[in-house]
Amino acid sequence: MLIATPQSMTFDAPLPLQSGASIHGYSLSYETYGTLNADKSNAVLVCHALNASHHVAGVYAGQENSAGWWDNMIGPGKSVDTHQFFVIGVNNLGSCFGSTGPMHTHPDTAKVYGADFPVVTVEDWVNAQARLLDALGIQTLAAVLGGSLGGMQALSWTLQYPERVAHAVVVASAPNLTAENIAFNEVARRAIVTDPDFHGGHFYEHGVIPKRGLRIARMIGHITYLSDDVMNEKFGRQIKTSTLPAALGSLPPEGALAAPVIPYKYSTQDVEFQIESYLRYQGDKFAEYFDANTYLLITRALDYFDPARAFGGDLTQALARATCKFLLVSFTTDWRFSPQRSREIVKALLDNRRDVSYAEIDAPHGHDAFLLDDPRYMRAIRSYFDGIAARLVVPQQVTAVAGEPA
Amino acid sequence: MLIATPQSMTFDAPLPLQSGASIHGYSLSYETYGTLNADKSNAVLVCHALNASHHVAGVYAGQENSAGWWDNMIGPGKSVDTHQFFVIGVNNLGSCFGSTGPMHTHPDTAKVYGADFPVVTVEDWVNAQARLLDALGIQTLAAVLGGSLGGMQALSWTLQYPERVAHAVVVASAPNLTAENIAFNEVARRAIVTDPDFHGGHFYEHGVIPKRGLRIARMIGHITYLSDDVMNEKFGRQIKTSTLPAALGSLPPEGALAAPVIPYKYSTQDVEFQIESYLRYQGDKFAEYFDANTYLLITRALDYFDPARAFGGDLTQALARATCKFLLVSFTTDWRFSPQRSREIVKALLDNRRDVSYAEIDAPHGHDAFLLDDPRYMRAIRSYFDGIAARLVVPQQVTAVAGEPA
Repeated sequence: MLIATPQSMTFDAPLPLQSGASIHGYSLSYETYGTLNADKSNAVLVCHALNASHHVAGVYAGQENSAGWWDNMIGPGKSVDTHQFFVIGVNNLGSCFGSTGPMHTHPDTAKVYGADFPVVTVEDWVNAQARLLDALGIQTLAAVLGGSLGGMQALSWTLQYPERVAHAVVVASAPNLTAENIAFNEVARRAIVTDPDFHGGHFYEHGVIPKRGLRIARMIGHITYLSDDVMNEKFGRQIKTSTLPAALGSLPPEGALAAPVIPYKYSTQDVEFQIESYLRYQGDKFAEYFDANTYLLITRALDYFDPARAFGGDLTQALARATCKFLLVSFTTDWRFSPQRSREIVKALLDNRRDVSYAEIDAPHGHDAFLLDDPRYMRAIRSYFDGIAARLVVPQQVTAVAGEPA
Repeated sequence: MLIATPQSMTFDAPLPLQSGASIHGYSLSYETYGTLNADKSNAVLVCHALNASHHVAGVYAGQENSAGWWDNMIGPGKSVDTHQFFVIGVNNLGSCFGSTGPMHTHPDTAKVYGADFPVVTVEDWVNAQARLLDALGIQTLAAVLGGSLGGMQALSWTLQYPERVAHAVVVASAPNLTAENIAFNEVARRAIVTDPDFHGGHFYEHGVIPKRGLRIARMIGHITYLSDDVMNEKFGRQIKTSTLPAALGSLPPEGALAAPVIPYKYSTQDVEFQIESYLRYQGDKFAEYFDANTYLLITRALDYFDPARAFGGDLTQALARATCKFLLVSFTTDWRFSPQRSREIVKALLDNRRDVSYAEIDAPHGHDAFLLDDPRYMRAIRSYFDGIAARLVVPQQVTAVAGEPA
């Protein structure tokens, strides 16, 4: 079993941010798995999405249930094989899982950042990640890999540091958010910001947490991560009750009017359906550990990402500077980052005559599919990374095989 | 111009409710348009959805901007022609637009109902509407007509009072809500119920209104009423700003890295995109006039409606008792009540060899389309109602035409 060890690195030099602000004296939490090879050519950077961290793979010593968020894909012998690759997971600035974020103290004022934490963008994160790689002595990435918001970072790597990326794997992502995506983010943010316990983002000083808002935000998020189909399959219209009346499912007497025995509680506030119970549970759990300011920052980074904006919306022009090879993956039932959005990226790259592979996985799970164990999905990733690994093999071994009698 | 006059009728006899509770001493607000014919065969009942009322058509005297919510469809010479039909709009129990609801006083206790207003269902509303028709001396409806939740009431009429309905027109509706639909309702309800100003539903006594929750509820609702496409078309990723920098849309200098001049404010709380401004405006407006307890009651009625539940989920069996003729209408981009759901009703009716017409309108506006002026939609409704009107013509006129020389 892969044992993960979180590490941290502090950066004193100011990092200029896209907003014009800058941040200094910050630290990034990260983990690495596998071994960096002699020519430092086998590094793979994994970028995370909203609710994830640097803990990508493996478990922490003595904590069996602490598997990393992409442990199904990354590890010894897995699709991204840590026998072959040196994999780096890094927690983004503004997160609440280790790297410097709103809950930390500003080094100059000795006050908790709170709502004063600078607004960070996908581009800022990529710049911070590049500095971490510098410090680790890694000039070029064999691959940068991410799903959803992580996929946006992977794509941005190919534009900000085209010479430092050999392959980009962009999963369940998009070249920008649609109006509907922004709308869902905005409702979630309003739920948090208008929670009286938010205190303008300085709730830490008040000893409270805007849990009501966080719960609502997470419930909205969860609905959009799942497909309608998988929700119907998992929950449907099932009633939440342990003691169903025996009459349930029996037919009403012939000629009777509607409304035979139905096990409803007839309440607007109690849980009546299983889906309600599930969402409330997810909301409650999330509000216990996720930081409200981080939620605002990360959803805003999602909203802002739009590499084509500077090119009058022309994605082909925007992606012209990318030179690496690409694998794009999307999932048929993902309505938050639909296959159509991945196809826009594929088209723009092909317009630029780039080397692009594209896998559209027929999966029922919606956006969540990118975190799940679909065998076709795992095979597509494995096959792509096997190809990358093959080109890392030292030349004489290849020659030896080629020299065998046919 | 059609001048509408709201009326009210009070009912002393208790109305038994599906929950086992009952309500008495309640009143229903209603409006009528057109003239009831001599044999009382031209009555059309219009059932309303979440945010609507008995004010279906026409305007109030001296109030130019007070058009009824379906005034584009119903009126003199319109698709549902009030020269031909006697149209009745009725506000449902529990509403906040006139009929007895949570803001009113319980006749026995003299206290405001608030959260103690009984949970009402689609079936209860239909029973209340039937009593109103009794009082108006109308035994049989030429048609019952409704969209969305109103369509559920129209469908339920055909099951609860099959002998009293000649035609049912069910627009943008469904035989029940999906898990995703319930999920959105539940998040909206939680936003309201967890607003500290809700006070368990007895906020009237505290002189406050849970506006934060109502705003969130309405914002969620609005997202689901629109299609992704129409949102992109109307708002896209447009920035909300009156003074765009001149550099917007210009290309960055050759070889420049990402992030040229972008007119972002870099704020997590300010409005940045047009879609955010639109949603906040809709939320604010709604919170000014809609009652929080009514929102809970109406969304719960939506959740509960499920005529097939008593038949083990078999919609064909459930609809067997319906004997009238049907027109079903759906809209291609409606993802809240998708065409597939209307087709389920069509199939179940055809299984029972009922007379069913079905129009699937290719419209970009999502669920909202049922309230809008799509010409194909209006023609489909007009054509159906013209057919109903033709059969209301007195027999000797038809004979005269038939007796003309060929």
